[in-house]
Amino acid sequence: MLYALDLIGTFVFALSGAFKGRKHELDWLGVTVLAVLTGVGGGLMRDMLLGDTPAAAFRDEWYLVACLLGAGVVIVAAPGVAKRWNRVMIADAVGLGLFAALGAAKAAEHGLGPIGVVMMAALTATGGGVIRDALVRELPAILHKGFYATAALIGGIVFLGLNALDFSEPFALGAAAIVCSALRFYALVKNVNLPKAERLNQAPAELSNQPPEK
Amino acid sequence: MLYALDLIGTFVFALSGAFKGRKHELDWLGVTVLAVLTGVGGGLMRDMLLGDTPAAAFRDEWYLVACLLGAGVVIVAAPGVAKRWNRVMIADAVGLGLFAALGAAKAAEHGLGPIGVVMMAALTATGGGVIRDALVRELPAILHKGFYATAALIGGIVFLGLNALDFSEPFALGAAAIVCSALRFYALVKNVNLPKAERLNQAPAELSNQPPEK
Amino acid sequence: MLYALDLIGTFVFALSGAFKGRKHELDWLGVTVLAVLTGVGGGLMRDMLLGDTPAAAFRDEWYLVACLLGAGVVIVAAPGVAKRWNRVMIADAVGLGLFAALGAAKAAEHGLGPIGVVMMAALTATGGGVIRDALVRELPAILHKGFYATAALIGGIVFLGLNALDFSEPFALGAAAIVCSALRFYALVKNVNLPKAERLNQAPAELSNQPPEK
Repeated sequence: MLYALDLIGTFVFALSGAFKGRKHELDWLGVTVLAVLTGVGGGLMRDMLLGDTPAAAFRDEWYLVACLLGAGVVIVAAPGVAKRWNRVMIADAVGLGLFAALGAAKAAEHGLGPIGVVMMAALTATGGGVIRDALVRELPAILHKGFYATAALIGGIVFLGLNALDFSEPFALGAAAIVCSALRFYALVKNVNLPKAERLNQAPAELSNQPPEK
Repeated sequence: MLYALDLIGTFVFALSGAFKGRKHELDWLGVTVLAVLTGVGGGLMRDMLLGDTPAAAFRDEWYLVACLLGAGVVIVAAPGVAKRWNRVMIADAVGLGLFAALGAAKAAEHGLGPIGVVMMAALTATGGGVIRDALVRELPAILHKGFYATAALIGGIVFLGLNALDFSEPFALGAAAIVCSALRFYALVKNVNLPKAERLNQAPAELSNQPPEK
Repeated sequence: MLYALDLIGTFVFALSGAFKGRKHELDWLGVTVLAVLTGVGGGLMRDMLLGDTPAAAFRDEWYLVACLLGAGVVIVAAPGVAKRWNRVMIADAVGLGLFAALGAAKAAEHGLGPIGVVMMAALTATGGGVIRDALVRELPAILHKGFYATAALIGGIVFLGLNALDFSEPFALGAAAIVCSALRFYALVKNVNLPKAERLNQAPAELSNQPPEK
């Protein structure tokens, strides 16, 4: 179940990377590269920093398959995905929460302190998006639009608190993921942290509750 | 022999990084930094992701020497290199094939699955160029001009296929390198995937069969 | 003592990252992310390349605390910091020397050769600044303004030489740090390597002896 959600999250993150690639008129290979890096980039950075190598995304190929599927869907059926963008955003919020919770849990297993655990939650959840934006020369979204990463940070804090209170890891992990996803979902519905007008054009797909421009 | 080709590939990749540095009017240090990162950057990322540390380029200093030589040659004799650019492109194609094959072989040794092996081939061969372009704020060449990375991907697939068919590793490695280099060489000669006119000015040295602008 | 200086260096590097974030009008989270990455980014890259994981900055949380403090100070009291910019630059020179010397020592412990040791000195001292500049889409300062990284390289060479002459590691480390910091301090006072006029606007805080623009 957790594993299936994790794969869905990876797939949806890959969608956002692939859309960004199309927006910048990359060829199919560029779109695929962005999809893969957005889908697994946060986890790759986490694993390199923790020394858990080869990185998890390379030990279980289904993550890479999910990324390639995401790229393929956008390459062959972008308008269809854009039409269902609301569902993509819901899946993205689920992925965000799960990535944050899994990142926090992994950091705790590797003995990191509280600040490190919270940072790893945010890095796992947002690192892929930072790589994606940096490669197409956009200012990384999390640097100037706070709520996406903020939800991940809060998810990390929830995990940390429940873990310190001796709740079981599965419970802490689930609660952290749900809180983070719920916050993100609430922000989407209420349009919290609306991007400033003059920056709307460079708003990355996953920070907007509108379909990305194609 | 393989080792000598590997060093030559590193040297030629460093040349392309150093030329890019000159194009952006960096000082000698900036040119050297770009040369080193282009020469060994792909291998560094591969080794960090696989956990083969300290990274290979730091265990055998001849790779760094090759990079410094590449930087030095461009700093003191750029016009001479530009005049012999055809030879540089041939050496670059050889380096591309070798890097792809060695990356694939190393990934297989670390137990990666087929997708991971092919991706590591492409990462090893093109990662340095991505770092180079990102640092000077150009859209990474492989994101919008496909054939360079495509040749590396195909090289990785060839290695994978021959390995699965139980050919010896040296044979699989050699065949993968030759196929990748030959494809790249053919693309150069036939001008496959000619860059679009409006992007020609930002065409990175190694994707063009013309001398880079100075 | 060494440890305290290291924390102060991290704090000051974080200040420069946070100022850069304010210059680009990032929100509080973006400012904090830049502060953390500038403060510990060089060390993170060094540790990933050497395979010393989890990276040191995550094993001892005081480094992260120093970064968060740096971000906090700039968020709540930027004008006060800017007024005392001369002191910040002195602390920055101390941090540069210390980071370079510690990077060189760690590289030598991991068995790197002379070129690798010198490069790790420069990477540790300047890597955070490169990440900072790349994320806000500025040409990394060390690529076009030489003296900052040059001082770090010279610090690495001093460590290497004293180490080869069988001086004790603490002595080599201290001497390398002092030489590097002194060179940087001298360059500040004498305005060595004044940025070219047309690039002054993108001069990063720590390369200028003037307060950063806000």
